[in-house]
Amino acid sequence: MKVEPIRWTGKRLELLDQRLLPGKKKYVACQTAEQVAKAIKDMVVRGAPAIGCAAAFGVVLSKGSSKAYAVLAKSRPTAVNLFWALERMKKAKDLENEARAIFDEDLAGNRAMGELGATLIPERARVMTHCNTGALATAGYGTALGVIRASKNKRISVIANETRPYLQGARLTAWELVQEGIPCTLITDNMAGHLMSRGEVDVVIVGADRIAANGDVANKIGTYTLAVLAKRHGIPFYVVAPRSTFDLKISSGKQIPIEERPAAEVTGYRGVRWAPDGISVRNPAFDVTPAELITGIVCERAVILAPDREKIAKLF
Amino acid sequence: MKVEPIRWTGKRLELLDQRLLPGKKKYVACQTAEQVAKAIKDMVVRGAPAIGCAAAFGVVLSKGSSKAYAVLAKSRPTAVNLFWALERMKKAKDLENEARAIFDEDLAGNRAMGELGATLIPERARVMTHCNTGALATAGYGTALGVIRASKNKRISVIANETRPYLQGARLTAWELVQEGIPCTLITDNMAGHLMSRGEVDVVIVGADRIAANGDVANKIGTYTLAVLAKRHGIPFYVVAPRSTFDLKISSGKQIPIEERPAAEVTGYRGVRWAPDGISVRNPAFDVTPAELITGIVCERAVILAPDREKIAKLF
Repeated sequence: MKVEPIRWTGKRLELLDQRLLPGKKKYVACQTAEQVAKAIKDMVVRGAPAIGCAAAFGVVLSKGSSKAYAVLAKSRPTAVNLFWALERMKKAKDLENEARAIFDEDLAGNRAMGELGATLIPERARVMTHCNTGALATAGYGTALGVIRASKNKRISVIANETRPYLQGARLTAWELVQEGIPCTLITDNMAGHLMSRGEVDVVIVGADRIAANGDVANKIGTYTLAVLAKRHGIPFYVVAPRSTFDLKISSGKQIPIEERPAAEVTGYRGVRWAPDGISVRNPAFDVTPAELITGIVCERAVILAPDREKIAKLF
Repeated sequence: MKVEPIRWTGKRLELLDQRLLPGKKKYVACQTAEQVAKAIKDMVVRGAPAIGCAAAFGVVLSKGSSKAYAVLAKSRPTAVNLFWALERMKKAKDLENEARAIFDEDLAGNRAMGELGATLIPERARVMTHCNTGALATAGYGTALGVIRASKNKRISVIANETRPYLQGARLTAWELVQEGIPCTLITDNMAGHLMSRGEVDVVIVGADRIAANGDVANKIGTYTLAVLAKRHGIPFYVVAPRSTFDLKISSGKQIPIEERPAAEVTGYRGVRWAPDGISVRNPAFDVTPAELITGIVCERAVILAPDREKIAKLF
């Protein structure tokens, strides 16, 4: 594995600082749950499954104190994998073993999803993806990007949306794909529709931060727009997510809390400001794609085509 | 008028360097058609009508030499106002008078479109716009942003898409609206669908770089996606453009040449690079919105609702 976003040494948690990629490769060491929570909030580590893994080790670092659970639960609101991991940790007897299991199962799950998802990807497909769902967003390998990895021998090529405002596509996905040797073209998010209208996209594949009981999917801002565009152009739209991303307590996507992030992510980049003083900003980090726009959800055990409440209930 | 993108001194053309806005207000002086062509190509001046005006003065500077026409015609390929202005200049007896007339007519046309377009904007409307279509994109006042200016007393608010990669929305539209005192919220392009799905957008209004005989509209990249989203949400989608933007020689949008711009606009911003080395890039500067997605085109004389070949032919 070339990319290790999360390293557990047995004593501390080392997180690859994804804010500095692809320019610098530097690890942030965490020795308390508070430090892990801050790293999650500040996006040192990001990606729904990776957040879940990091939070589990955060609980280990603070020996399962109730304060540790509380501070980690407050770090980021949308990705349910975080809360799922904390629930698992609460029930565990051996905290370190459980955190390691969460990590190992995520990695194994990604490989399983990769294999399963690859059956949906045609030879020489031009695959559009959004945000980063790769090794950096998970314990390793990736969800949607795992499917892309598993399809490498089909001579596919990837169109990576840059994913404003945080540029996970431009900084992280493009970087992983260059390293992997899979041909990748970077575009700005607003070019996706144009490429689809020119017949240059064969399939769209994304990850998820939370999936409601009816199949509605919360994912990185811009995902909903891609699904609307894919529908118009008759392009299959797949979501790849482990079972830990499903939140059956939530009936539909409307009830998923959407995190609003700082204005500075929108008004500039790393100290360079391009927006004028005095401008208001919105910065929702996620949006909700209704199940009706989703061709299929790939999870560890099955591909749920045309997802709905009934099919999802059956899975659990 | 607070913003003067194009100043004709009688001897030289001064262009406000829009690449430096909103941080710096600096003029580039041009004394030859070659310098004007370079300023257009490098985006010192941009916006379809402004390019037309600048090119006309470029012809004046080089005294209508055939070389002047050739170099200006090669500067940017998509906005037809450029070619329209050059054609007018070719037929003119007094070059300076004609260039001044093109400029003055553009300004008067914008005021007329503003008044006409404002009748389409409801009280307290939340108006989404894309790119910059304001004083900076024209001889002054603006096309779509002119309609927004003319609607100020309706207590409207604006949602400005940042418009990657060149950030005309974040840098220029946001700046004009802050100066104008019209409430404006800046978002990244991929947030538009989310806001529409939450019922936070009442109308979308954009400019145009070229309109084909059938009503298809080439405009800044991302426009097509907004039109698809607006259609899905039942939100009116208006295009505001002077008659110089229509190209009746072109039958449909498919034949409009789409400029591909340098990769560096996508991989970073002003020397800060965020994409990894070795990544491929696409950078189409425009896309085509089919007439069927357009609620109406506002031009100087009329609003063409549900535009089609017949209605457009009648206008000319």
